[in-house]
Amino acid sequence: MRVENSEIFEKYFKNLSDRERAVFEGGITLGALFHQFVGTPVSKKNKELLERAIEESMKNQPFVYDIKVKIKNVEEKYVSLDGKMLDVDLKIKVNNVIAHLKLEYIPEIDYPLMYVKDFEER
Amino acid sequence: MRVENSEIFEKYFKNLSDRERAVFEGGITLGALFHQFVGTPVSKKNKELLERAIEESMKNQPFVYDIKVKIKNVEEKYVSLDGKMLDVDLKIKVNNVIAHLKLEYIPEIDYPLMYVKDFEER
Amino acid sequence: MRVENSEIFEKYFKNLSDRERAVFEGGITLGALFHQFVGTPVSKKNKELLERAIEESMKNQPFVYDIKVKIKNVEEKYVSLDGKMLDVDLKIKVNNVIAHLKLEYIPEIDYPLMYVKDFEER
Amino acid sequence: MRVENSEIFEKYFKNLSDRERAVFEGGITLGALFHQFVGTPVSKKNKELLERAIEESMKNQPFVYDIKVKIKNVEEKYVSLDGKMLDVDLKIKVNNVIAHLKLEYIPEIDYPLMYVKDFEER
Repeated sequence: MRVENSEIFEKYFKNLSDRERAVFEGGITLGALFHQFVGTPVSKKNKELLERAIEESMKNQPFVYDIKVKIKNVEEKYVSLDGKMLDVDLKIKVNNVIAHLKLEYIPEIDYPLMYVKDFEER
Repeated sequence: MRVENSEIFEKYFKNLSDRERAVFEGGITLGALFHQFVGTPVSKKNKELLERAIEESMKNQPFVYDIKVKIKNVEEKYVSLDGKMLDVDLKIKVNNVIAHLKLEYIPEIDYPLMYVKDFEER
Repeated sequence: MRVENSEIFEKYFKNLSDRERAVFEGGITLGALFHQFVGTPVSKKNKELLERAIEESMKNQPFVYDIKVKIKNVEEKYVSLDGKMLDVDLKIKVNNVIAHLKLEYIPEIDYPLMYVKDFEER
Repeated sequence: MRVENSEIFEKYFKNLSDRERAVFEGGITLGALFHQFVGTPVSKKNKELLERAIEESMKNQPFVYDIKVKIKNVEEKYVSLDGKMLDVDLKIKVNNVIAHLKLEYIPEIDYPLMYVKDFEER
């Protein structure tokens, strides 16, 4: 059983709407992903394996419905993964609400931004 | 100027209410804190300095209004910081809304839980 | 070209024997591995992929000749990777010297120990 | 009692000279420091506190005799700590041998290099 399905877990979240819950869990997952994996040695040789491993690792987090990770600007020579190289599409599903979240580098503010693209009702 | 005060930053968040924005940013900060600092060597000698350094580091994150970090069950002998040792009170302020967030270990589910305690309007 | 093959890199290491160089690089790699990946969400579902991703990531580090990572005591329910779950065999090759290094949890001292098992001359 | 003073700990290191032991432990500490703290939010406001917290945290590691951490190129605006910003002087003492180790960014190879500056006998 996933932790988010336990009653004790649920009682802490009665004060949030489904949308609020979805963006809260999405924020946790993006913050976790960034700060867990920034610094990891990456080159062309291990880029794809690392992308898949990040995705599958974050799928353990509560309410993650889908996640796609791309690491950009990887070269032959290895570097420590920089947050600006990350491009992440994340879907969090809470009841009928799906929040689409994004982490991507925004050159105008020189910042790897995490934001909510849109919501979907199912 | 803080990044969250730039117009470019702001235009990505027009689809969120102040409460949604507050819990999104709060989620990011808690996920970031946990995955950045878990693993850090900690003993009685460096516990307080590490608590202050985590607080001041996370105050850089957008919309952090206040944060208090306690590391529990620290002994003479050093260990790698475990997420179950973290007890965090975080306040995120977006316009007139303050969200109080918490990270604490919940023994019943053996899980370091991140949740929203309550909201305050100012 | 790997960074360790550059002349500038090499001139910093003239004061070390091949054995000293091998254990220095091995120490770096074990310390890096531990502190990079501790905290990663892991369950039975993503354990093997994470093991392979850690191996391939660390193969980017200078002089890594071979590495085998096992994550122990993984369950259905996900947890944050604890250093005590790591079992690593690492070979570092500097010229004709191969150092075999190990990271494993030693229950008697309740400590995930990094040490040098033995050396091989080729 | 520090972990390195236990007999069980010691029996794993009979195959290393004091110099080898010193550079092995120094490598671990530098690799650990880099991969633990890269990614931490840092600005002018929390730079000094973070430097001290990194130093005191790493003093828990076995055989660390002294350590001095400087974070370079910090600005008003916060960034995620990049390994290229780190400048570390580390002394490891094993019996009568002190190894002086260094982590610093080397522009010619665009690489944050860890190396052994020299040894001292006391």
